[in-house]
Amino acid sequence: MIVKNFYASAVPAGIKYPDRLDLGLICSKTPAVTAGVFTKSLVKAAPVILDIERLKQGRAQAILVNSGCANACTGEQGMEAAKKTSRLAAEALGIPEEMVQVASTGVIGAQLNMTAFETAMTPLVTGLAPENFEKVAEAIMTTDTVIKTAYRTIALSGKEVNFMGMAKGSGMIMPNMATMLAFIVTDAQIGFPELNKCLKSSVTRTFNRITVDGDTSTNDMVLVMANGAAGNKWIDDEIPDDQQLFQDTLEGILKELALKIVADGEGATKCITIRVCGAKEADQAEQMARTVANSNLVKTAFFGEDANWGRIIAAMGRCGVRFHPEQVDISFGDILIVKNGTGLGTASEEAAAKVLQEKNITVSIDLKDGNACEEIYTCDFSIDYVKINADYRT
Amino acid sequence: MIVKNFYASAVPAGIKYPDRLDLGLICSKTPAVTAGVFTKSLVKAAPVILDIERLKQGRAQAILVNSGCANACTGEQGMEAAKKTSRLAAEALGIPEEMVQVASTGVIGAQLNMTAFETAMTPLVTGLAPENFEKVAEAIMTTDTVIKTAYRTIALSGKEVNFMGMAKGSGMIMPNMATMLAFIVTDAQIGFPELNKCLKSSVTRTFNRITVDGDTSTNDMVLVMANGAAGNKWIDDEIPDDQQLFQDTLEGILKELALKIVADGEGATKCITIRVCGAKEADQAEQMARTVANSNLVKTAFFGEDANWGRIIAAMGRCGVRFHPEQVDISFGDILIVKNGTGLGTASEEAAAKVLQEKNITVSIDLKDGNACEEIYTCDFSIDYVKINADYRT
Repeated sequence: MIVKNFYASAVPAGIKYPDRLDLGLICSKTPAVTAGVFTKSLVKAAPVILDIERLKQGRAQAILVNSGCANACTGEQGMEAAKKTSRLAAEALGIPEEMVQVASTGVIGAQLNMTAFETAMTPLVTGLAPENFEKVAEAIMTTDTVIKTAYRTIALSGKEVNFMGMAKGSGMIMPNMATMLAFIVTDAQIGFPELNKCLKSSVTRTFNRITVDGDTSTNDMVLVMANGAAGNKWIDDEIPDDQQLFQDTLEGILKELALKIVADGEGATKCITIRVCGAKEADQAEQMARTVANSNLVKTAFFGEDANWGRIIAAMGRCGVRFHPEQVDISFGDILIVKNGTGLGTASEEAAAKVLQEKNITVSIDLKDGNACEEIYTCDFSIDYVKINADYRT
Repeated sequence: MIVKNFYASAVPAGIKYPDRLDLGLICSKTPAVTAGVFTKSLVKAAPVILDIERLKQGRAQAILVNSGCANACTGEQGMEAAKKTSRLAAEALGIPEEMVQVASTGVIGAQLNMTAFETAMTPLVTGLAPENFEKVAEAIMTTDTVIKTAYRTIALSGKEVNFMGMAKGSGMIMPNMATMLAFIVTDAQIGFPELNKCLKSSVTRTFNRITVDGDTSTNDMVLVMANGAAGNKWIDDEIPDDQQLFQDTLEGILKELALKIVADGEGATKCITIRVCGAKEADQAEQMARTVANSNLVKTAFFGEDANWGRIIAAMGRCGVRFHPEQVDISFGDILIVKNGTGLGTASEEAAAKVLQEKNITVSIDLKDGNACEEIYTCDFSIDYVKINADYRT
């Protein structure tokens, strides 16, 4: 599918390795309303700092993105490089430099290979075509093993409105506003305040609910561009049905991409949902689910397909949330394994171990202390995670 | 060496596995001033709950400890079992039940094997001897690969005063008051308030500064017993030199045991000190050092002997402490690798990679923002960690 008046391109620029797609460009025929969320890390990469500044105008026309180098912790030289790459793209596209958003992913600390950008810019821009979105999704992969995209078509005020989204991310994943990188384009007609609000609330419930390894990146960002080419009525409070459908669609795309990141977590063999219910407050449910989801002992037990609920309750105990251990129930899938804080014995553990052989697993924790319920999405922790990360740079 | 009027014994009771030492007893000829610190986890094992209650009297005469079963999340049955094992020991020793502290380590959720305790109690008490301390240290091992003990002899007011300490711990280690289990006995004469104060301040600077995997156990405890058999003058404010020497000695023992736990961290191949200096406040330095020490990406890079400082600065960025990334220096051993927030290039990375081939490594982070300095001790994160924890119960 295509999204009207959006074009994409990717080329092997040789930024770090030869002969692999590593430089991508997404651009709109006209300036697009653009909203973004960025890493909360105090250490922000140069492109993140530049994009935040430029997005104050709520508009962008192009996203230039590279893998192979994060351009983080690169000082003034890194900031100059980020600006220069955006200038190269702007000149080739014939648009103002400030309308280009830049994004980088890869090793922290290395400077951008400017020669690669200079020589690749002409073929990159020449290659722009409506159907090249997947090629950009491939160009932004690092330790990712699969391309992560999501598509939707909806009808708003009688007009067909299209969405395309992409994400990358596999390690250093516990987003604290956004994941590593995700870009969504739509031809919907929507103003900046509405788009921004939709994005922020969607990110909270999707990318901010996943964790692979508890580490937050310096380069996290989600950008959504809406160029209005669909010609639908402006989405605002006056047409609440359209507003709700747009919000649901955007959130659906972000959740699909977020779960694809978890499924492709470094070394992951399983996708795990940690659901905490019966909490007094939603933020307590989230905090407990996040602590369990980040526990190495819990995650290695999942890898070993061991229904080791003791590690779950140990993580709950240290998470900082007050609860009553003697009234907690824990289930793996449909199998109740802990009732009122004590184990139900060998038969239920054996049944639970069968659940753990599946690829998608839900752990449900009931605190019986209130009505709040939250989920965190994570993956298991395998030998390959260590192999990947002990060898990443070599 | 021996500590006057302390006796120890260990037997293979068959609590979980046959033919391995799994039940230990330490006792003093006379009631000993005893102080303890216990896990801050909301989920406390039965023996922890029982010991906290009994230690309000500031006295104990024996410690009964088993491996193979944590007696955690075992409900009322578990509490009754903890009390019954203490009663069995008290009867065999001819002392009041309330003078027995109990400790358990092993899998969470299983009930104690009471038959094993009943049949083993007589040989256990019969075997008491001054020189059996190391046998108890062996009996409390689970995934530990080495016995962890520490010994000191000092002179206080002209009297020889002896200390013996033991600890166990290898996984589920980020103590939040105490490590998994540690017991220290001394024949020093000291009152409860002084002993308690010494222990608490020592634990803060030793066991509470280590982390293997960021997980806190339900069974953590440190107990120190002082039976006064050395006949030194009472240690209090009136003899500050003795007080200081006692404090330093106790802290030295705890630090030696804490570092032995890190060195024997599950799957560990290296011991790593993360030192943050130049912070505004000590708790900020600690928080940053702890976040870096707990990062899986940092720990796997150490395992891979990769001087990947980008992962260190990424962890710093998400730790919640405000600092100025552009003025940070980072060194591996004596090798400066990051100066004012940017990398010093390939030559310094290669020199740093040589440092990483050593067994003991110090990473120094200078924030240049104040005078506070704190250290956290940790280990690397290897393929064997995952293997150990995926297979632990099988």
